[in-house]
Amino acid sequence: MDPAVWIEESLAAAVAETGGPDCPPILAAAIRHAVFPGGGRLRPRLCLAVAMACGKGDAEAALTAASAIEIIHCASLVHDDLPCFDNAETRRGLPSVQAAYGPAIAVLAGDAMIVLAFETLARGLVKRPQALGRLVSIVGRAAGAPYGITAGQAFESEPVIDTALYHRAKTGALFAAASEAGAAACGAPSTPWRNLGSFLGEAYQVADDIRDVAGSAEDLGKPIGIDARLGRPSAVRDMGIPDAIRKLDMLVESAIDSVPLCPGRERMHDLIRHEASRFLPEKLSRRAA
Amino acid sequence: MDPAVWIEESLAAAVAETGGPDCPPILAAAIRHAVFPGGGRLRPRLCLAVAMACGKGDAEAALTAASAIEIIHCASLVHDDLPCFDNAETRRGLPSVQAAYGPAIAVLAGDAMIVLAFETLARGLVKRPQALGRLVSIVGRAAGAPYGITAGQAFESEPVIDTALYHRAKTGALFAAASEAGAAACGAPSTPWRNLGSFLGEAYQVADDIRDVAGSAEDLGKPIGIDARLGRPSAVRDMGIPDAIRKLDMLVESAIDSVPLCPGRERMHDLIRHEASRFLPEKLSRRAA
Repeated sequence: MDPAVWIEESLAAAVAETGGPDCPPILAAAIRHAVFPGGGRLRPRLCLAVAMACGKGDAEAALTAASAIEIIHCASLVHDDLPCFDNAETRRGLPSVQAAYGPAIAVLAGDAMIVLAFETLARGLVKRPQALGRLVSIVGRAAGAPYGITAGQAFESEPVIDTALYHRAKTGALFAAASEAGAAACGAPSTPWRNLGSFLGEAYQVADDIRDVAGSAEDLGKPIGIDARLGRPSAVRDMGIPDAIRKLDMLVESAIDSVPLCPGRERMHDLIRHEASRFLPEKLSRRAA
Repeated sequence: MDPAVWIEESLAAAVAETGGPDCPPILAAAIRHAVFPGGGRLRPRLCLAVAMACGKGDAEAALTAASAIEIIHCASLVHDDLPCFDNAETRRGLPSVQAAYGPAIAVLAGDAMIVLAFETLARGLVKRPQALGRLVSIVGRAAGAPYGITAGQAFESEPVIDTALYHRAKTGALFAAASEAGAAACGAPSTPWRNLGSFLGEAYQVADDIRDVAGSAEDLGKPIGIDARLGRPSAVRDMGIPDAIRKLDMLVESAIDSVPLCPGRERMHDLIRHEASRFLPEKLSRRAA
C-alpha cells in the first residue's frame, strides 16, 4: 500500500480519539478541519522514508511518530493563522480554522492537537516503552522551547532576530525531528539522521520565501506577501530570487550528502531529489523532477 | 523538607529547560511569569499526597508527575486570560501574561508549556519507561479532548452546555489526573484514586463559583464576576450561596470517603479536610480548619 494512504489512515485514527459523543462538537470539527485535507505531508513522509531506509522496520512505531509530528505541524499552522500572528483567512485553499470557527476555538484546537500528538505516541508505543521516551523527547524538543517551532515563532516578537536560530527553530526543528524520529522508531541511532531533516527544513524555508514573493496565492492556497508585510527575515529579501534558488539547490545537495550509511541509502537519495523538485511551483523551479 | 519546597524546586528545574541563551528572551520571561509565583499548587500537592499515602514511594517520579500537571494548569490559565476568552488583565494579583507580554507571546508561552509538561515527564521518568506511558496518558487525557481542560473550555463555545461534562472536563479532569498520577508514579493502581480528584475538583469548582459571586478581587488576585458576565454555568446561579456551600461540604465528605484502603489513609483524610478549609476565604467558609 502507498505510504501516503497509511499516513492518512493513521492521522484519521489519531484524530478520532479526540472526537466521540463527549467532545464539544465545534472543537471536534475544528480539529478535523485542521488536519484534513492535509498539505504535502512532507514531515510524516520524511519520517517514514527514514524508517524504511534504516531497513529494520517497526512500521507501526514509525507511523505513530509520523502522525504525532504531522499533528504538531497542523497545530502550529492553526495558531500561526490567529489574528495575533498572521491573521490569515485561508489555509490550503480553504478558510483557516480561525476564520471558520473563530479565534477561541482555534486556540483550543491547537492546544488539543499538541496534547493529542503526545497521547498518540503513548497509545502507539504502549509495547515499546523505551522508544516512547526517546520519541517524546524528540517531538517535544521540536515543538517547544528553546529549540522548537514555538520558540521559532516567538523570535518574531524580539526586537532583534537571530535569523539562523529563527529558521532552525521555526522550520528546521520539525523536519529534523521527522528524520530523527524515523530512525528512533526503528531502534536505530537517531542523531546521525538529524542533519538530513535540518537541511531539508532549511531548503523548504528558502523555497517558502521564494514562493511568498514570486508565487501566486492560487499555487499556495494561502495569501502571499505575508513575510514582507510582517517584516520577517527572508532569504529572498537578503539575496534576491536567483541566489535564493541557487541556495535551495545547494541545501538539497547537502541533504543528499548527509544521508548516513544504511541499507536504503540510494533509494533515499532518489526520494530527496523527487521531493525537493516539488518544493517550488513548476514555473519557478529550475530543476527537472 | 516541606513538599511545597520540593514542588517549587522541581518546577524551577523544569522551567529552566525552556530557558538558556538560545531561547527568545521574551518567551522565556513569559513562561517564568506564568509559573512563578504560583497559586495554591493544589494539584501537585494532591499528587504528592496520594503518592505518600500509597506508601511505596518513588519521590522523584511523583514530583515529576506533579510538576507536569502544574505546568499544564499554568498553561491553561495563560490561554484562559487571552482576549478571546476572559480578556483578564490580572492573575494571582499580578498582570496576566497576555497583559504583560501581549497575546502573541501568551499563545506561544501556553503552547511551549504544554510541550514542556510532556518533556518533563520524559526527562524525569527516563529510568521508569513503563510509568512514562501511563503518565503521558493520564496527563494527556486531562489536558486535551474530549475529557480534558481544553474540551472543558471549548464547551463555552457551544450553543447549549452540558454542565456536568463541562465542569468535569474544565476543572475535574486535572484534579482527577493529579490523584491518579500520584498513584501511577508509585506503580500503584491509579483508577481507584480517580474519584478523590474528581470530587475535590468539583468542590473546588463550586468554591470558585462562590468566590466569583461573593469574594473580593483582593482575595482572589483576579477580577470577580467574570462567570456571570460571560454567562457561564455556575453552581451559585443555579442554587444560591447557602446551598452551594452545603454542596461544597458534601463534595468534600465524598472525597474523604473515596480514599482507597492504603497505608496513609487516615493522614489523607486529615489533609483533605485541611486543604478544603482553604478553598474559600475565611469569611465565607462555615468550616473550621
